[in-house]
Amino acid sequence: MSAMSPTAAALVIGNELLTGKIQDMNVEVLATTLFRLGVSLRRVVICPDERAAIVADVRALSAAHDWLFTSGGIGVTHDDVTMAAVAEALGRPLERSPHLAQLVTSHFGPECTPRHLQLADVPRDAELVSDGSSAWPVVRVENVYVLPGIPQLFDRKLRMISSQLAGRPPFVSRAVLTLCDEVGIADLLDSVVTRYPDVAIGSYPELANARYTLRLTFDGRDARRVDDAAQHFVSEIPQDRLVDSGVPLSDANGPKAE
Amino acid sequence: MSAMSPTAAALVIGNELLTGKIQDMNVEVLATTLFRLGVSLRRVVICPDERAAIVADVRALSAAHDWLFTSGGIGVTHDDVTMAAVAEALGRPLERSPHLAQLVTSHFGPECTPRHLQLADVPRDAELVSDGSSAWPVVRVENVYVLPGIPQLFDRKLRMISSQLAGRPPFVSRAVLTLCDEVGIADLLDSVVTRYPDVAIGSYPELANARYTLRLTFDGRDARRVDDAAQHFVSEIPQDRLVDSGVPLSDANGPKAE
Repeated sequence: MSAMSPTAAALVIGNELLTGKIQDMNVEVLATTLFRLGVSLRRVVICPDERAAIVADVRALSAAHDWLFTSGGIGVTHDDVTMAAVAEALGRPLERSPHLAQLVTSHFGPECTPRHLQLADVPRDAELVSDGSSAWPVVRVENVYVLPGIPQLFDRKLRMISSQLAGRPPFVSRAVLTLCDEVGIADLLDSVVTRYPDVAIGSYPELANARYTLRLTFDGRDARRVDDAAQHFVSEIPQDRLVDSGVPLSDANGPKAE
Repeated sequence: MSAMSPTAAALVIGNELLTGKIQDMNVEVLATTLFRLGVSLRRVVICPDERAAIVADVRALSAAHDWLFTSGGIGVTHDDVTMAAVAEALGRPLERSPHLAQLVTSHFGPECTPRHLQLADVPRDAELVSDGSSAWPVVRVENVYVLPGIPQLFDRKLRMISSQLAGRPPFVSRAVLTLCDEVGIADLLDSVVTRYPDVAIGSYPELANARYTLRLTFDGRDARRVDDAAQHFVSEIPQDRLVDSGVPLSDANGPKAE
């Protein structure tokens, strides 16, 4: 990957993930989205619902990356401490946003209590980001986007801010599916890695797949280089071990398997 | 949770997770297993296949927790750098284990190459842990268990070492399923949290569930205290909002929903 690549980290907050009650769904969505947008997700931390832990992680991760995305802990129950922790991490007080307070009041109507209004408390001078698809904006403070943990909401909010993240060449990826033994092609992979230092190559055995046993992936910003690296690899393995080259082959090789 | 609880961290290694190619399955399995064994999983880090990053994380996480479990990066292709990184983090050279070398040789037979034998390279004086269910042991170095990333193997290896981790009171957990508004019960939850400081209480809205809208969880080491906390909460909410109390109720409340 290019050193020019903007970087990102994620802080996923929630005891429910650390105790196995809930399978995280947000990391994959974030990773896929950032990859498509050309942003390099470098690090994910899952931490408990504890203010001190979150403060330390927000400080470290936001300082070391271009963007930090937090997930979870933004309601108003006792275990929702993300907003206060982000405020503390960035040295800002928590303050009620008049705009959010109005949204809360009109949303909950006569049911609205002081507790509901805590939903409008955000770090001072937070930016409220919206693309117009929802009245409820995403809270951004410096380079930290504060996203909800509920998967449906996380997904929706991430789409709302995507335009703020876009504007650079996306990563492209090609997969090659094979019946190769991973150890047997390790030397070949070394040579492809050396020849294509700008292409990130991954090798993933799959035990439970009926169609192939080893998946190779080739990622980079330059589609031509990615294709060349994949093609180079494909040309060097026994063709009866190839299940899907993942790149356009000449007609002589016949149609792709899928 | 008790301060006496042994703690654990996980380091999940792999570009494929940070680029969204693969959905992690191992964190949930590890979290569920440790919870059942009474070990408190405090932190999970997902990092790329980069030796320097892994070295730094192994050092920090193994120093700050009773156990560290790594997942992934233990083959012999260019992107498998975990074993070398663990060795470096703990200040040991990587050395060939005669026992593992023999396993590799007999497993691969005439196909065995020097590259295959690299599978036998482990940090000096690593412990090889097995419960007899598989010839292939788990590598343990100090308080670090080095586990494979492939979910089927991760799961199998984790079961192999479970007996090393067992021997303390397990956590117990009770779930209460409701139709409550989360903000509306926030004050009530505060009072239960104050009254049962030894019980960890979580509140999880579910948007896509037809049966209930809010799940409350009560975790702790003392089943009686956990049940009491759940029961206390249940007794304070409108009974038409209760879907499943999750704890044995008196007959006066009728049978449980499931």
